Amino acid sequence: MYKSKIKGIRIVKLDEIFDSKGSVLHMIKSSSPEFKNFGECYISEINYNCIKGWKLHSKQTQNISVPLGKIKIVLYDSREDSSSFNQLIELNLGRPNDYYRVTIPPGVIYGFKGLSNPNALIVNCTDIEHDPNESVTLSIDDNKVPFLWDKE
Amino acid sequence: MYKSKIKGIRIVKLDEIFDSKGSVLHMIKSSSPEFKNFGECYISEINYNCIKGWKLHSKQTQNISVPLGKIKIVLYDSREDSSSFNQLIELNLGRPNDYYRVTIPPGVIYGFKGLSNPNALIVNCTDIEHDPNESVTLSIDDNKVPFLWDKE
Repeated sequence: MYKSKIKGIRIVKLDEIFDSKGSVLHMIKSSSPEFKNFGECYISEINYNCIKGWKLHSKQTQNISVPLGKIKIVLYDSREDSSSFNQLIELNLGRPNDYYRVTIPPGVIYGFKGLSNPNALIVNCTDIEHDPNESVTLSIDDNKVPFLWDKE
Repeated sequence: MYKSKIKGIRIVKLDEIFDSKGSVLHMIKSSSPEFKNFGECYISEINYNCIKGWKLHSKQTQNISVPLGKIKIVLYDSREDSSSFNQLIELNLGRPNDYYRVTIPPGVIYGFKGLSNPNALIVNCTDIEHDPNESVTLSIDDNKVPFLWDKE
């Protein structure tokens, strides 16, 4: 377990079971301590040097891992009543050394940048289904988040 | 919906939402007609020209899609009490044209071959967690299944 300075963020190392035919990569189980409920599973591709974000959910929790390529993820606690309000985490995700599952609770703003050419894949298992009314996308230049993306 | 000749196999076209930063690929939702229960999500990599199989589960249902690369999947109904006993399906999966979710009930034997260099990825959402006691792996040469793999 990676120690997180943002309350509710969980960063858990996942197993990669190596096999000469191709690895098996754990993601999440119903018995995982971080698992709450199954809403939806989808995959998000991030092309090289592209930035997706900022995303902010009011209800939905994300559980993400990166089975292909590498990404940078930035997480920012925008919850004014949180003990970790204003804290920011920046980390890289990808196999084999950084194959983690990151759990992102509602109220934590997040964004990704693709570090792999041509792309990286994120698998996301959420606790409720997609609902456009419970999420917003902020500009990556929004000054609500104290982080400047390097736009190569 | 792709018409399946094996009872209980469901082959459903999934949405790929194109975006210049990278596509979003639907996989499965709790409201999907094929969704029964969430047991586990994992990712299986298949290296080029490698064959994984045959797999046979007695309890677990698989829900798979291929967000990266291309694979051949072969499905064989080994349930003697099934109206489609002995039927076999062979199909290719991969984006963008063959981005399907395949639901494989217990008793249907399946195997994969990686068609993409260097590899392909399969995402699998199962209805119960992994349990080594409810599955067997048969040799890909096992004559229980009337299919000869092309071993390049």
